[in-house]
Amino acid sequence: MSEIASLITKVRERQPLIHNITNNVVTNFTANGLLSLGVSPVMANAREEAADMASVADALVLNIGTLTTPQVEAMISAGKAANEKGIPVVFDPVGAGATPFRNKTALHILEQVNVSLIRGNAGEIAYLAGADAKVKGVDSSFQGNNQEIAIKAARQLGTAVVLTGEEDVITNGDSLYLGKNGHQLQTRVTGAGCLLSSVIAAFLTVKETELKAAAGAVSFYGAAAEIAADSSKGPGSFQTAFLDTIYHLNEKELQGKIKLSYFNHLGV
Amino acid sequence: MSEIASLITKVRERQPLIHNITNNVVTNFTANGLLSLGVSPVMANAREEAADMASVADALVLNIGTLTTPQVEAMISAGKAANEKGIPVVFDPVGAGATPFRNKTALHILEQVNVSLIRGNAGEIAYLAGADAKVKGVDSSFQGNNQEIAIKAARQLGTAVVLTGEEDVITNGDSLYLGKNGHQLQTRVTGAGCLLSSVIAAFLTVKETELKAAAGAVSFYGAAAEIAADSSKGPGSFQTAFLDTIYHLNEKELQGKIKLSYFNHLGV
Amino acid sequence: MSEIASLITKVRERQPLIHNITNNVVTNFTANGLLSLGVSPVMANAREEAADMASVADALVLNIGTLTTPQVEAMISAGKAANEKGIPVVFDPVGAGATPFRNKTALHILEQVNVSLIRGNAGEIAYLAGADAKVKGVDSSFQGNNQEIAIKAARQLGTAVVLTGEEDVITNGDSLYLGKNGHQLQTRVTGAGCLLSSVIAAFLTVKETELKAAAGAVSFYGAAAEIAADSSKGPGSFQTAFLDTIYHLNEKELQGKIKLSYFNHLGV
Repeated sequence: MSEIASLITKVRERQPLIHNITNNVVTNFTANGLLSLGVSPVMANAREEAADMASVADALVLNIGTLTTPQVEAMISAGKAANEKGIPVVFDPVGAGATPFRNKTALHILEQVNVSLIRGNAGEIAYLAGADAKVKGVDSSFQGNNQEIAIKAARQLGTAVVLTGEEDVITNGDSLYLGKNGHQLQTRVTGAGCLLSSVIAAFLTVKETELKAAAGAVSFYGAAAEIAADSSKGPGSFQTAFLDTIYHLNEKELQGKIKLSYFNHLGV
Repeated sequence: MSEIASLITKVRERQPLIHNITNNVVTNFTANGLLSLGVSPVMANAREEAADMASVADALVLNIGTLTTPQVEAMISAGKAANEKGIPVVFDPVGAGATPFRNKTALHILEQVNVSLIRGNAGEIAYLAGADAKVKGVDSSFQGNNQEIAIKAARQLGTAVVLTGEEDVITNGDSLYLGKNGHQLQTRVTGAGCLLSSVIAAFLTVKETELKAAAGAVSFYGAAAEIAADSSKGPGSFQTAFLDTIYHLNEKELQGKIKLSYFNHLGV
Repeated sequence: MSEIASLITKVRERQPLIHNITNNVVTNFTANGLLSLGVSPVMANAREEAADMASVADALVLNIGTLTTPQVEAMISAGKAANEKGIPVVFDPVGAGATPFRNKTALHILEQVNVSLIRGNAGEIAYLAGADAKVKGVDSSFQGNNQEIAIKAARQLGTAVVLTGEEDVITNGDSLYLGKNGHQLQTRVTGAGCLLSSVIAAFLTVKETELKAAAGAVSFYGAAAEIAADSSKGPGSFQTAFLDTIYHLNEKELQGKIKLSYFNHLGV
């Protein structure tokens, strides 16, 4: 796991500029999380400049948490500029499966933009994979199921997939990491998933395989949550300690904390 | 007060989904406050999906803090869907009385949507009640006056009213609770009133009378503020401790802290 | 420096209402920072009411961090109302120089609105001054250069200029303060510059010269950051401690901490 742990050092050395077009609930937390990590956030979401901003960024994050029609246009414009430049695009399909507008938009973005990685919970990934409707909106379906859904989505959509939950599934459809870092208090802080999508985008800029980069980001993030929870009294102090830990946690300390299992040649 | 205190347990058991269409200053704090309480926030505010989201929620909060024309349309669309489904709708008329646009919008929402409860400060409630213009914008008018204004608004608009200030007035026009929980530091945190509106919405889902549910929410919230202030050095640490306390404060601890007086058959 | 230090007392006594039309990343932090300071924030950003709200405010802040076309219209409408009323207008040209849309908008606002003071980093101020393109986007150009750029911008645009960086330059083109308060952790909190723009606006309401008022705001803010950093473990706890310190730091404690140098009659 020392190779995985070393990615945090590479991310901090590279200091990438991450362009986030995200929901209005989590903009502040996302920007502060990226600044704590040591990378640069930019949040431009107007149609008039989204493509220009993506063109100077090192990675792009598209998050449909509080989507509106003008913002979706900005996402597609930025996504196309990112594709042209060849930088990674992370898609966070917040609430896919919940309303027809979200469903239509999520599929439209996937059609128009070449996405490198999708991060979502079980319900969102299941919706995108066209899985059995019973899975929709469910956060805690059993592990085997989550792995199957993530693999199905990755193969069908031709992207890497990170399905987060009690256990995190990171797959490109052929190989798979299972991650067990993290803490229950993450579910009590809004945008904990959204910030992870942006942290993954930062890790994707260090020229590793998407799978390793995502595994590095997910492990780093979950380990930081565990450390932060140790000195927290609840969701308020956890949020504060989490930003502090993202700032401090280094390769050496991370190395002993990573809980990842790797499976390759998954078969068809 | 043991019946009032027991509501917090019922809210946490029910885990309602609260749909908030609220201002862009407080979205993050509102979502984090609800997550700390143990309930689920959702913030969808696009016209294209507001009604669909309200239809799967357990309560709806409409807050005009940073209203725009498209957002008002989303509020009315969601409000009508909530009315059709029969779930509680809380209205927070932020800044009513301050600009013609806000005044027109507040009255338009009250015309189009059947609101269960209105929460505001003295100036906002006075504006809605059509009270003497001198009261407009005043936060700290004398107690008797605040009670009269709240009763007048409740009778005129046919809803429950929570008028918050140094003393909180909770009335349906016939009966009234006076609440004395709370702390001055709440006035130094933006969205302290807005989050209370959403917490009241959560309490309204437990099938109590609106008056009791609102009294329970207001007492819980004020008691949490008092406990949080005890370990705070200022508005920053208060905000952190407040979220922690909302997470921890249980029925048993709450019971000894509630400061409520009840008055019924107020007469006309 | 006792005269400069006394301004914080005057700001708190005056309790001005600061109207902010700002970006959606920093609305919450800006409002909480102003509340901690002891002044009143209002964030109305709809075209329909921006002018009405500016007309009842004591100062206006225009920040283009996440600008959209409707918001720019609201800014100009509010700016004209502020000019008519004669209240200070602070302009924060976030990201000027980064995209054509931002550049065009920044210049358009400066054409349409009579701005009292511009606060930005070296790259933003350089762009507005039409300085050598090499300076664009650079935050840490050498001191002499930053002073020249700030003076050039102030003379060319006919406004006071605050150029923030490791050393802060405050000038009206004729006289100049150099400020050395502040802490590196400010660069790890999103909106640290944006909130400073709003704090400067609050100081501009106490009827001092723009230069002295801005020097007072910048010193107060930087000193608060130094105190907060002393008890912080990282960007999360720094943010909390910073709000607490803004709330507590008084004239007397501030006096011994101000690091300002003054230069007048700069010549042409």
